[in-house]
Amino acid sequence: MLRRARRTITILRTRKDLDGWRAQQSEVGLVPTMGALHAGHADLMRRAAAENDIAIASIFVNPTQFAPGEDLEKYPRTFERDVEVLRDAGVAACFAPTVEDMYGDGDGVAVLPPPRFDALSEGAARPGHFSGVCTVVAKLWNAVRPKRSYFGQKDAMQCAVLRSLRRDLAFDLEVVVCDTARADDGLALSSRNAYLDADERAAAPVVFRALGAARDAWRAQAGPGPAAALRSAAEATLAAEPLVRRVEYVSVADYDTMAELDVVPPPDGGAEPRAILSVAVRLGNVRLIDNLPLRGN
Amino acid sequence: MLRRARRTITILRTRKDLDGWRAQQSEVGLVPTMGALHAGHADLMRRAAAENDIAIASIFVNPTQFAPGEDLEKYPRTFERDVEVLRDAGVAACFAPTVEDMYGDGDGVAVLPPPRFDALSEGAARPGHFSGVCTVVAKLWNAVRPKRSYFGQKDAMQCAVLRSLRRDLAFDLEVVVCDTARADDGLALSSRNAYLDADERAAAPVVFRALGAARDAWRAQAGPGPAAALRSAAEATLAAEPLVRRVEYVSVADYDTMAELDVVPPPDGGAEPRAILSVAVRLGNVRLIDNLPLRGN
Repeated sequence: MLRRARRTITILRTRKDLDGWRAQQSEVGLVPTMGALHAGHADLMRRAAAENDIAIASIFVNPTQFAPGEDLEKYPRTFERDVEVLRDAGVAACFAPTVEDMYGDGDGVAVLPPPRFDALSEGAARPGHFSGVCTVVAKLWNAVRPKRSYFGQKDAMQCAVLRSLRRDLAFDLEVVVCDTARADDGLALSSRNAYLDADERAAAPVVFRALGAARDAWRAQAGPGPAAALRSAAEATLAAEPLVRRVEYVSVADYDTMAELDVVPPPDGGAEPRAILSVAVRLGNVRLIDNLPLRGN
Repeated sequence: MLRRARRTITILRTRKDLDGWRAQQSEVGLVPTMGALHAGHADLMRRAAAENDIAIASIFVNPTQFAPGEDLEKYPRTFERDVEVLRDAGVAACFAPTVEDMYGDGDGVAVLPPPRFDALSEGAARPGHFSGVCTVVAKLWNAVRPKRSYFGQKDAMQCAVLRSLRRDLAFDLEVVVCDTARADDGLALSSRNAYLDADERAAAPVVFRALGAARDAWRAQAGPGPAAALRSAAEATLAAEPLVRRVEYVSVADYDTMAELDVVPPPDGGAEPRAILSVAVRLGNVRLIDNLPLRGN
């Protein structure tokens, strides 16, 4: 396998610096992040570096996507280590602006996601979150003008919202969604896993097990079946773990629209998802999300 | 003077057709319009054709920028004549999509202007208007990817909002604002002038006379002066015209931010505007707006 590791990486601190860098590039791949990079991010980085002439990552803890009461202040910041991850993955440049450079005095244009997302799982659980995501990603897409922009499947609704952003506002680029990276015990990699204490970390794989229980129930379907049965299977698994303080949602939704389903089509053996399972729980004080597209047999 | 009149013009009915056309062009100038083109639009078109490799105009009566109760249904539609105006001005292509092509089922991404505009003159008078403008212009800018986009000074707050849109979302283009085109009697050209009956049309220059009265008051200032005095001068002129049914606002604002001023700096003889006067009135059932940057002596 071709290793595109670089000896140097260009750190860009302002939109002006970014403009100067961008003017010298042709086909760019972009990976937007909030830093605290893990192996899942590294997968995105390597893919962006492999599929484009040059890759850039952004590291920006975006204040507008934290819902009221969320963890903006204590969000993990590990910039020096993040830059090593980028360098090792073959990323050529890192855009790491200040909040002021991105938002000025804060009285700026905002981008709202389609209203249908407001009532759905992550949209309902985190008021204002996807508006912040759309706003910052629109800024990044226009400033970087990538040919492809990479996101992880773990944030399934974010991926759906950003596919809408691209299509509705006619951005001239491709949204590439990469499979969720997992620890050996199944826990989806996430920057927020750093908040888990030892007991919580040991209990956290219950989220993936819950998704697996619902998938097993789906695989047993001979025809269309009630989504409620899949939700129940996941909820029963989560209920058996005392450290799960709250289940925010267990969702069985259409893969493209993320609309909740009443009836789930049965397995058809194909590669196209027939639906998507999503879960959000509070484990102690940490919010964990995960999902599993239902495909195959 | 170079006449760039063309014998043919390409009519593009869908975003897909537009993509195909765009892929063949390098440097594009864009003039977004809602049609019902007049001599003011023709000025923008000629300038776009002269300053860029190729010019495209959009004709799209954008439903999302009509505030509740406004004139979407009766907005003038004169497509065949508009195409002649474009051809005569040297415009190469006309993008005239359907509402469905631009908005799908309507449950899409929206772009909100900076909150400061909500409370200001046009923003307060037309709830939701500038969100519709920002949304459709963001779509057009991404779909056309122009180097320059042209707008008329007559819609002064629209120009200020779109300068914010460009800056805040980092669009890689120049917003070019062109002087207001006027009839010989001073009336600013506008597609909505078509609604005026003969008596109203005869009375309509009162708007420009009101702006002139306020400017005269400004020119008499030896030092900083109260904005209220300029507003009073305009209001007195408007009050003398019986066909003026309602004065929506008389605004004396900072030229860049459009924030209302209490104190206006005096003339300094320079070309930079020291402030901007804006007026909106109802003349019969027709809403007219106009403005005058305060510059020079």
